[in-house]
Amino acid sequence: MIKPRTPPGVMELLPRDQIAFQRMLDTIRRNYERFGFLPVETPVFELSEVLLTKSGGETERQVYFAQSTGALAKAADGVTADGPGSSPGQALPELALRFDLTVPLARYVAEHEHELAFPFRRYQIQRVYRGERAQRGRFREFYQCDIDVVGKDALSIRFDAEILAVIHAVFSELGIGDFTVQLNNRKLMRGFFEGLGVADGARQMDVLREVDKLDKRGADYVRETLTGEGFGLSAATVDAILAFVAVRSSGHADALARLDALGQGSDTFNQGIAELREVLELIHALGVPESDYCLNLSIARGLDYYTGTVYETQLDGYPQIGSICSGGRYDDLA
Amino acid sequence: MIKPRTPPGVMELLPRDQIAFQRMLDTIRRNYERFGFLPVETPVFELSEVLLTKSGGETERQVYFAQSTGALAKAADGVTADGPGSSPGQALPELALRFDLTVPLARYVAEHEHELAFPFRRYQIQRVYRGERAQRGRFREFYQCDIDVVGKDALSIRFDAEILAVIHAVFSELGIGDFTVQLNNRKLMRGFFEGLGVADGARQMDVLREVDKLDKRGADYVRETLTGEGFGLSAATVDAILAFVAVRSSGHADALARLDALGQGSDTFNQGIAELREVLELIHALGVPESDYCLNLSIARGLDYYTGTVYETQLDGYPQIGSICSGGRYDDLA
Repeated sequence: MIKPRTPPGVMELLPRDQIAFQRMLDTIRRNYERFGFLPVETPVFELSEVLLTKSGGETERQVYFAQSTGALAKAADGVTADGPGSSPGQALPELALRFDLTVPLARYVAEHEHELAFPFRRYQIQRVYRGERAQRGRFREFYQCDIDVVGKDALSIRFDAEILAVIHAVFSELGIGDFTVQLNNRKLMRGFFEGLGVADGARQMDVLREVDKLDKRGADYVRETLTGEGFGLSAATVDAILAFVAVRSSGHADALARLDALGQGSDTFNQGIAELREVLELIHALGVPESDYCLNLSIARGLDYYTGTVYETQLDGYPQIGSICSGGRYDDLA
Repeated sequence: MIKPRTPPGVMELLPRDQIAFQRMLDTIRRNYERFGFLPVETPVFELSEVLLTKSGGETERQVYFAQSTGALAKAADGVTADGPGSSPGQALPELALRFDLTVPLARYVAEHEHELAFPFRRYQIQRVYRGERAQRGRFREFYQCDIDVVGKDALSIRFDAEILAVIHAVFSELGIGDFTVQLNNRKLMRGFFEGLGVADGARQMDVLREVDKLDKRGADYVRETLTGEGFGLSAATVDAILAFVAVRSSGHADALARLDALGQGSDTFNQGIAELREVLELIHALGVPESDYCLNLSIARGLDYYTGTVYETQLDGYPQIGSICSGGRYDDLA
């Protein structure tokens, strides 16, 4: 007798909760559509060679591969025939489950480019798959509710503001409590660090990781680490970093004033300020209440593929949950 | 350079078609909910040992298994270590993708039995996965839109009629043309074949498969096969079978009259007639127009797990498509 149960790391709801969950997805979808985003659904599996082109590192190690009974038997035979010298990499299965909705979007746009109108606004609400080790709060299967605007050449900064207006509309209607969209711009952050002599992106991330320990370990610990061996920053540099990432605005005018107070720097730095100012003005014009957004110059989004505006959204009453909606502008994905 | 493309055997739509498709799914969902069916979603993968308990044969050969990068590497090592004598069956992966929504339903009901109210009406609209060989019209991934009523002990026959009323509501609102729900009852069919001395279900299916060639090969061919070696039925028996499976009603009164004309037989046969009559009366009472349903005593649904009412739905203008909505009553699934 096999006990009927779900695999670890998946969510399954009883009907009452499923109804509430479905209502939430419907609210998100309706708001996406209201702003003119078009629905896209992609297959759960992509060709492995396509899916894994753009990724790497941690993500790639968490991919699920799918093999039919027949393919599995063949693969097993193949590995056996190749003997102990064969590497699993050689026999990479044909199909892999999507681990996010961004790589499928890049493939979709590249494949259907001539049949789409640009800027292409799409939304996609589907489940994604991660080969996580089973642990509390980590899911192997979960929904993502993505919106993206894909430009062909230059993409106006007004789309950055539009996305923030969509986020505001969604969370307002969901009614899950007060929230704040926290804004930053990678150009501003990059320009700032470069001005301090920290030009390497990975190194910037290392510094930010230490700064992130402020709450838990205190300012003295962080200062000691960053001025110590391994980092070797000057005390003045560390002070400048701590002051920079501590910037939070309260209200619209305050946000603009804080940008002014940053002064001027490299072209990159100045461009980051200009973009942030424009996004702030635009979301204000779009009617997003100033209590629902702020500058937060510590937002880094992992410094990976984002190139401009970045944001995270926090529930005011539950900061410990972390960001419940994040993203940013990126170039050259495909 | 990897060419961006989807795997063979999956559907991917451009936004305009996706909108139409989404509208269709919404119509189906709204009608399911209007009849009091509750939403259920299950994870895309089930534990292999749970998923494959109830299945077998062709279906089991078409299952997709999912393995994370790590599990795959381990499995490859394992097979290599076991040497050429190891069977793929020993190393069955932990997770398998659902190949229908019925086995997950059985698992869901068994797992959550004490938290559900019976009769439990659920709908489930999700994709399923089949390791099909790529060929025209065969999909590796496709949507199923299931409704089921799960009883705890006896389940009133009125639910058979209710399901047919839901089908009628859905296809009427979809507006994809005239359609006919074709009804039969496995008890009637079983009783009829038993009365002719063909008691074995698999043999009944063999006979029906030959009868199914009527259109293409003609009556003489079918008669010759069924009276010839291998089947060895008498000419009178074959005539009776051909007359039975040819029964189609036109209109409600005609359907009842044709049931009367079948006379009486074994208990099973008579029970099949009684159930069909009750379902006909009930759907009539539920306001389903009599032009939209009929008796079709050739409907067999593969003679697998169905035990009572069975039905198929055809688009009147496109009979070559075959059934676009099928099902029936079954007992003892879990």
